[in-house]
Amino acid sequence: MSQFWSDLVHRLTPYVPGEQPKMDKLVKLNTNESPYGPSPLAIAAVAAAAGNDLRRYPDPNADALKRTLADYHGLAPDQVFVGNGSDEVLAHAFAGLLKHDAPLLFPDITYSFYPVYCGLYDVAFRAVPLDAQFGIDLDDYTGAAGAIIFPNPNAPTGCLLPTADIARLLDAQAGIPVLVDEAYIDYGGDSAVALIARHPNLLVTRTFSKSRALAGLRVGYALGHPALIEGLERIKNSFNSYPLGRPAQAGAIASVADEAHFRSSCAKVIATREALRAALTGLGFEVPPSAANFIFARHPAHAGADLAAALRARAIIVRHFRQPRIEDFLRITIGTDEECRQLVDALKAIV
Amino acid sequence: MSQFWSDLVHRLTPYVPGEQPKMDKLVKLNTNESPYGPSPLAIAAVAAAAGNDLRRYPDPNADALKRTLADYHGLAPDQVFVGNGSDEVLAHAFAGLLKHDAPLLFPDITYSFYPVYCGLYDVAFRAVPLDAQFGIDLDDYTGAAGAIIFPNPNAPTGCLLPTADIARLLDAQAGIPVLVDEAYIDYGGDSAVALIARHPNLLVTRTFSKSRALAGLRVGYALGHPALIEGLERIKNSFNSYPLGRPAQAGAIASVADEAHFRSSCAKVIATREALRAALTGLGFEVPPSAANFIFARHPAHAGADLAAALRARAIIVRHFRQPRIEDFLRITIGTDEECRQLVDALKAIV
Repeated sequence: MSQFWSDLVHRLTPYVPGEQPKMDKLVKLNTNESPYGPSPLAIAAVAAAAGNDLRRYPDPNADALKRTLADYHGLAPDQVFVGNGSDEVLAHAFAGLLKHDAPLLFPDITYSFYPVYCGLYDVAFRAVPLDAQFGIDLDDYTGAAGAIIFPNPNAPTGCLLPTADIARLLDAQAGIPVLVDEAYIDYGGDSAVALIARHPNLLVTRTFSKSRALAGLRVGYALGHPALIEGLERIKNSFNSYPLGRPAQAGAIASVADEAHFRSSCAKVIATREALRAALTGLGFEVPPSAANFIFARHPAHAGADLAAALRARAIIVRHFRQPRIEDFLRITIGTDEECRQLVDALKAIV
Repeated sequence: MSQFWSDLVHRLTPYVPGEQPKMDKLVKLNTNESPYGPSPLAIAAVAAAAGNDLRRYPDPNADALKRTLADYHGLAPDQVFVGNGSDEVLAHAFAGLLKHDAPLLFPDITYSFYPVYCGLYDVAFRAVPLDAQFGIDLDDYTGAAGAIIFPNPNAPTGCLLPTADIARLLDAQAGIPVLVDEAYIDYGGDSAVALIARHPNLLVTRTFSKSRALAGLRVGYALGHPALIEGLERIKNSFNSYPLGRPAQAGAIASVADEAHFRSSCAKVIATREALRAALTGLGFEVPPSAANFIFARHPAHAGADLAAALRARAIIVRHFRQPRIEDFLRITIGTDEECRQLVDALKAIV
């Protein structure tokens, strides 16, 4: 507490990210990073950006990166917004597109940064309970609302919605912005990007931190109608002209060029995920289907906090949320086959 | 205009950064970049960060960078805040420290992002006119206020305030935050950092984009009492957990280790600045003393807009502000000796 803080600071409850421990020899399955490295083209592009040109500001509009992403998704550059990780993109969306008189709707169990953004920008919201199977029922989102946001697949559950259901919601709520947060869509889901052409109220956000294995570079983006993108640009240009440095822009562009690396990394994660689900189910865990690079699992005989602590004692870190309804679940990032084998061995010993 | 925008977006007037032209063979003296490259140690550190570890999130708290900066400035790590360029640091300060019921005070002629931040965060402000010599008179800042911000040296004028005057203001306004924006302090000014120990209301911001020649990496920071830093951290952790990527953290740390490169770059800029001032004065320009890596110059017989256009026709870009009181001035970044020679030759031909 300080007399020098604004009222806002006194009111805030900041987000707590997953731990980034500074120990080696850890099996780190807590922040949904890729177990495989980024494209060698991306690494080479970041290295090539390490030169005298670092003295120059980057392109404030990241035009080359926007063109690259537009081409990749079959859109125009003015349908692309880029930011310093998708968290920054989401923050600008909360300020610029999701704040209205009527409440923003999002699931009660979802990315826990959403209510934090609402605190930062004073956005009225209503948390909509997931159904009994931890699924999002989009029929719950058709009432009075100022805007809607949900991840697809949802986090931390991994549950996927079909795009046909999303299209119906976009029609039912055609007068308000609907943000589909596709941080994890590359692990088996159909993207809502295909709906952008017919739905000017749809914004889709993406990240380079998961399927493109560039969490260390901080690049995220949003796709949607040019009017939605312009709203984000106006916020961004009132906040920070140059959110993406030269290494980040160069690395992201090169990553998109390496479709083979991207596809093979995603395919390996999906294969490991299904093997891990089977193994944990065999140990008595309940593991709902996941379309993400993590699974959400609980054991009927063991509290989630106890399991997380027992794993930590074995130098394996997973994410555990002390939150009603999900306190007995672990969110386990899909690692390499070897890391997942160590996890299964440890859980075998624990349960 | 869009029905999907929040009220805020409709109200905003975004900042317009200096142009980043995509042409080669340009003498680019418009955005106050260093004419010399960053430290070779910083370049090597960025290159070394280009590897498989990019798949991992960076340290969200940038502890190693904070320790490095704390040691460099003789402070503790909890007196250091880091952000994605000093623009992001300033944005968080406007939201978290400079917004109060009473108006924020800043000079009428100064960094033109300040009123934009006020628009973004709905901060009440009063612009205090510079004196007739374009100086800041701190006696004008001792009345009722919620907070105070000014650059030292000021931009785009280059005028420097002595730290003794700043110390007096900090005493006179001990109950409110005072932010001294030291983006350009390394070019001949005494820093207010020495005042932090005795003034818990002082926040000093710095950037790696000017004197450390790392504009392309996006790193800025703030120094002050731990309570001020905590206020910034609470905003940051409600906005984006990971503002600085791995290459940025590594490059900034390495830059601070190369004091010799830093000092020699600054000394060369200062020497070129004084030679350029003398040359332009010889051409009939009025050029107030500058403690920055730019000069602010006008010619009694030529309109600023005409001079800027004539220079542009010769592939030399400087910054011109269409703003009352200063529309006849050019803000000219100090380039290499050769770039400044080309500028002087061009102005000789024009005037």
